[in-house]
Amino acid sequence: MKAFNDLADFSPETIRELLQLANYLEKNPQPTALSGKVLALLFLSPSLRTLASFQAAMTRLGGGAFVISPEMSIHGIETRPGIVMDGVAAEHIHEAVPVIASYADAIGIRAFGQRKNLADDLADREFHAMTELTDTPYINMESACNHPCQSLADWKTLDELHAGATNKKLVLSWSYHPKSLPLAVPAATIHMAAMRGMNVTVLRPDGFALPEPLMAKARAAANLSGGSVTETNDRKDAMQDASIIYVKSWAATNNYGDAREDLELRAELHDWRINEDWFTSASSDCRFMHCLPVRRDVEVCENVLDGPRSIVIPQARNRMLAQMAVLHEMLGRR
Amino acid sequence: MKAFNDLADFSPETIRELLQLANYLEKNPQPTALSGKVLALLFLSPSLRTLASFQAAMTRLGGGAFVISPEMSIHGIETRPGIVMDGVAAEHIHEAVPVIASYADAIGIRAFGQRKNLADDLADREFHAMTELTDTPYINMESACNHPCQSLADWKTLDELHAGATNKKLVLSWSYHPKSLPLAVPAATIHMAAMRGMNVTVLRPDGFALPEPLMAKARAAANLSGGSVTETNDRKDAMQDASIIYVKSWAATNNYGDAREDLELRAELHDWRINEDWFTSASSDCRFMHCLPVRRDVEVCENVLDGPRSIVIPQARNRMLAQMAVLHEMLGRR
Amino acid sequence: MKAFNDLADFSPETIRELLQLANYLEKNPQPTALSGKVLALLFLSPSLRTLASFQAAMTRLGGGAFVISPEMSIHGIETRPGIVMDGVAAEHIHEAVPVIASYADAIGIRAFGQRKNLADDLADREFHAMTELTDTPYINMESACNHPCQSLADWKTLDELHAGATNKKLVLSWSYHPKSLPLAVPAATIHMAAMRGMNVTVLRPDGFALPEPLMAKARAAANLSGGSVTETNDRKDAMQDASIIYVKSWAATNNYGDAREDLELRAELHDWRINEDWFTSASSDCRFMHCLPVRRDVEVCENVLDGPRSIVIPQARNRMLAQMAVLHEMLGRR
Repeated sequence: MKAFNDLADFSPETIRELLQLANYLEKNPQPTALSGKVLALLFLSPSLRTLASFQAAMTRLGGGAFVISPEMSIHGIETRPGIVMDGVAAEHIHEAVPVIASYADAIGIRAFGQRKNLADDLADREFHAMTELTDTPYINMESACNHPCQSLADWKTLDELHAGATNKKLVLSWSYHPKSLPLAVPAATIHMAAMRGMNVTVLRPDGFALPEPLMAKARAAANLSGGSVTETNDRKDAMQDASIIYVKSWAATNNYGDAREDLELRAELHDWRINEDWFTSASSDCRFMHCLPVRRDVEVCENVLDGPRSIVIPQARNRMLAQMAVLHEMLGRR
Repeated sequence: MKAFNDLADFSPETIRELLQLANYLEKNPQPTALSGKVLALLFLSPSLRTLASFQAAMTRLGGGAFVISPEMSIHGIETRPGIVMDGVAAEHIHEAVPVIASYADAIGIRAFGQRKNLADDLADREFHAMTELTDTPYINMESACNHPCQSLADWKTLDELHAGATNKKLVLSWSYHPKSLPLAVPAATIHMAAMRGMNVTVLRPDGFALPEPLMAKARAAANLSGGSVTETNDRKDAMQDASIIYVKSWAATNNYGDAREDLELRAELHDWRINEDWFTSASSDCRFMHCLPVRRDVEVCENVLDGPRSIVIPQARNRMLAQMAVLHEMLGRR
Repeated sequence: MKAFNDLADFSPETIRELLQLANYLEKNPQPTALSGKVLALLFLSPSLRTLASFQAAMTRLGGGAFVISPEMSIHGIETRPGIVMDGVAAEHIHEAVPVIASYADAIGIRAFGQRKNLADDLADREFHAMTELTDTPYINMESACNHPCQSLADWKTLDELHAGATNKKLVLSWSYHPKSLPLAVPAATIHMAAMRGMNVTVLRPDGFALPEPLMAKARAAANLSGGSVTETNDRKDAMQDASIIYVKSWAATNNYGDAREDLELRAELHDWRINEDWFTSASSDCRFMHCLPVRRDVEVCENVLDGPRSIVIPQARNRMLAQMAVLHEMLGRR
């Protein structure tokens, strides 16, 4: 495996094999599988779960990781192409990426994207400008429009919940958040759920519809898997018979990158805070998922987040297990 | 071992076995004992020795560690319960602790406490609010009122100094420091020395008496071990025949949490800086211990700190060796 | 090996054996060679390559590393000797170095020096004030006037380029940089190249001549190896038949430590930016080396840095491989 960038690059069968490997590694520790192997972790955006789970994953497999972030270099790392470097930054990503990658057997990169130009972000241009600088196998640790490690872990979480029943209803719901957040998780989630054969409903207020290319990609996956993808702004309609509500806030897409309009739109949307009332028409065992971090009593009420519906902690733990499978596949001996 | 939180949770025999294990591991490297095992290190308060020694300990035993501190997450980690998270912090300890712990075989947590309410700090309420969030075995890396890793290392240091002679006189002396520091080290130290059978004298100015529950806990341990615990503000009296002076500054306890009174009290106490004159009536081989970091020529004069009485460097090294025993006991195969 | 501080401490034969070991380790992974061994990495100055490559090197050999920098301690680490610590810093290097070193089998230290007093910096006084605090084997990760890890890696890079032909012409050229940078890399580079038998020309503007003791040291090495060392401010003359241009900016030496004069001198030197014109009279396969980080279009034009002359990425990768040899020699079992 030369890259783990997008679940869409793999067949559903390959994904299922990766998850079998994850389950196998969970039950059968392999503490020398990656002896002497090195994973570079480059964080151009902040992280908690990804930072911790990748280091833990490498240790469990007998290898090791090192972490680089801009503040560790001299006055930060410049990312803009073609710039005369007479300002603060003393190092350019053009050297930093290939150098770091040259010390490692694989490199994980996190870069959220600029959220200015929709076409740039949909194509993950900033992210791929970096991956093109090296031949070292790479892992997308969240780019502007993808988060395959989260999606692989979420697939595993859904398998643990519903086993063979892949055609359950999953609602991806926007939630209120004081800040304008990236599209990576919603984009990756609807595609993953569609690819897994689920019936996906995107629930979001007006002005926050997911860009059509993301919806089209998810619909294409659903066509192959027997799932479906719809969208609505009607909460009751969306939640009818839902088995999963996957909550995530994201930026306004009406005029993507227009910070003022985004702020005006979301100022009216404080009631997009998930509480128990949302579940009235849902399946009685409807579960609450969230990729974390989550703002308590802003995105979701405490009684849901801390209640029996919430599976956010095992969901987060699956990050490590899913990544162990990816690392084993990418770096293990044949 | 499910928790290493307080030496008082163990019998003196168990502590001695842990120290035998530490000595064994020092002389007989076990570089595969903890292969594939992961230690999570969560620092809500700063650290140098703890940060370095736990990572070194895991490497020496063949496992690995990862470090998380609030600045690594998005805008810090919220610790206040029941809060509406519409401010700066994007993540709550309520998720962060169980998630981090779920990636690890054991979690070490450092959180100094608020130093506002004495009853809260004596009960280590903030610390245990975190440990209750996970079933993963945990290690107290310094809470409001305990520092068992320091005490286990100090016991080892005292054994190296006096071997079988456990009934020597140890003076725990307050020293001047420009800041109001936690009670963890003095609390843990007097209990450890009493449990070890030593004759403990707490030397401190008026207004800085250790809270009665801490003194009572140490006296109870002394009753079982054959040691003793007294307190005084009389320097000459305290130092008479002392074999050890263990120096540490701490907050005023007269009105615990009253920053202004604390400042006023300590403003008059600059002469609580240990120098050679203090040792006139002490045992001629009286040694100087300090948990570090220490402020030179503020807490102690350079000629004592750099002189033959000082054993602060081997004392600090014992942190790693003591923790290796704890980790081996907690994570090793049976 | 008790210290890796200066290539001058070793014979050329020993250096060549180290590089053979580096080549051997590159082709024959030894993932258990340093099992259970610990490298402490103390960074008093910022780093990217050194930080990443030493951690990767230890992982590849089966050991581990931990990183300490002042911001990890409580309010920083004091380095001034004999100071009354009543200010911000709560810890002194006098304790920090021996404590950190006591947890490790070797310690790497980076400290750029003060760039105030030339004699102090030429003698690496600040650096050796630290190494004298511990008996643990140490590695110079860049001091005021040395950078032996860079030089060992550069020697390897030159071997890969010219194999047996050690008498090629290497031009060490000053370049424009908005800041006044240390002498470590130029000092180490001319000595290394001279020791390797190369014909070294130092090309620099007036006011930036390398201090005579550094030139004399390089000349002495050249006398033994059959190489040569000259200096000039004439670009055409210097570049005539050059096989390598090694670019690095450094502080004005006319009145070393005089920040204002340095700034005035360099304000007129913006045209010391390497571009393709510089290579007119050079050997047709003349290569461009730089220790990185490099400021694009300030120190060197993009078409040179990204063109076929540039070998900066393999040069940086050799840092890891050279250091693996040093670590194996210093920490490996006999």
